[in-house]
Amino acid sequence: MALIKLHGAPMSTCTCRVMTCLHEKGVEFELVRVELFAGEHKQPPFLAKNPFGQIPALEDDDLILFESRAITAYVSEKFKDSGYDLIRHQNLKEAAMVKVWLEVEAHQYQPAISPIVYQYFVAPIQGKTPDQTIIDTNMEKLGKVLDIYEARLSTTKYLAGDFYSLADLHHLPYGYYLLKTPAASLINDRPHVKAWWEDISSRPAFKTVAEGMNFGGK
Amino acid sequence: MALIKLHGAPMSTCTCRVMTCLHEKGVEFELVRVELFAGEHKQPPFLAKNPFGQIPALEDDDLILFESRAITAYVSEKFKDSGYDLIRHQNLKEAAMVKVWLEVEAHQYQPAISPIVYQYFVAPIQGKTPDQTIIDTNMEKLGKVLDIYEARLSTTKYLAGDFYSLADLHHLPYGYYLLKTPAASLINDRPHVKAWWEDISSRPAFKTVAEGMNFGGK
Repeated sequence: MALIKLHGAPMSTCTCRVMTCLHEKGVEFELVRVELFAGEHKQPPFLAKNPFGQIPALEDDDLILFESRAITAYVSEKFKDSGYDLIRHQNLKEAAMVKVWLEVEAHQYQPAISPIVYQYFVAPIQGKTPDQTIIDTNMEKLGKVLDIYEARLSTTKYLAGDFYSLADLHHLPYGYYLLKTPAASLINDRPHVKAWWEDISSRPAFKTVAEGMNFGGK
Repeated sequence: MALIKLHGAPMSTCTCRVMTCLHEKGVEFELVRVELFAGEHKQPPFLAKNPFGQIPALEDDDLILFESRAITAYVSEKFKDSGYDLIRHQNLKEAAMVKVWLEVEAHQYQPAISPIVYQYFVAPIQGKTPDQTIIDTNMEKLGKVLDIYEARLSTTKYLAGDFYSLADLHHLPYGYYLLKTPAASLINDRPHVKAWWEDISSRPAFKTVAEGMNFGGK
């Protein structure tokens, strides 16, 4: 079987989500760099892998997948018996709670945190000043989401229960960038969220990935 | 075992997504109505089920789940051997493609279609005139997404392959409302998308659910 190829970029949040998962599962892979600044993701060779033109895409033999959260679910399922069990596949109820908090990340956390990270990191690269109104609106939104996380994490050690899971992992890339901005207080001022963050971000799988997360030199 | 309870509302897209799944699986359940106009979803009894205050929530014995897409994934997994197999659980590659198109629905289709449906159906209930700029912007966005669907559906009968799956099912509630608006052309003008839509919306499981989808009397 050929080595798994991950087409992406080391500073991309979605690529990092998948890389962290691959490391947790102990799956060897090759990162094939897609040159975003050259618009490579909008050219036919990459569009043949993902017609939506977004990184990452994963190539596993003749199977080509895109959407980072679909890729991590596939990797966690395919390699369920090796590495760390990220989806609690032997316990239906725990697996259900992982599913719930995976969706919370996608529909509550990501929509609030991504515009903040975008304004601080991507806007300057595009020669724009970060839009403080967008930052403020989304900080308020993210604060409300993290208030619910704070309450949840005062009853369970991780989001889905007293076990680390894919649901926690999915939060890492955006959280990592957020902590480099003035909005870091959103995590640091909530004791249970902060303790959770320190725990999940210190896992070796993510630390390896974080070394490559240098967005715009910040 | 007690009957599964689904806390939601019959006109809500997210509730309908779960109900359609339960019908496909042949799972008996009780719909417990949450009175949105009375703000019941923001009151403590419902917040104990979903701290984010959004319908639906599912109660299966002592397990309480929220986020419609997590609930359908749980139902499809728990009852994988009864009713229609929505997740291709015996074929890792097909299951992976279902995961990909589930994420496409969540991250490409839903962000574009929901503001259109909101403007046409929810804004009038709130005494507002639908905002044509929001409608136009999102129609353009949705059109680009559906162009990719059109290409995809010219090679496979359904989104994940030549089999109906949860990925197709998730598109039903918003599509149903869209077709009652002037934006219906986005589906009707694309022959493969239209044929796909007619196929998936004519399944008995969805037809039963659609009977209750009367939003604002339209």
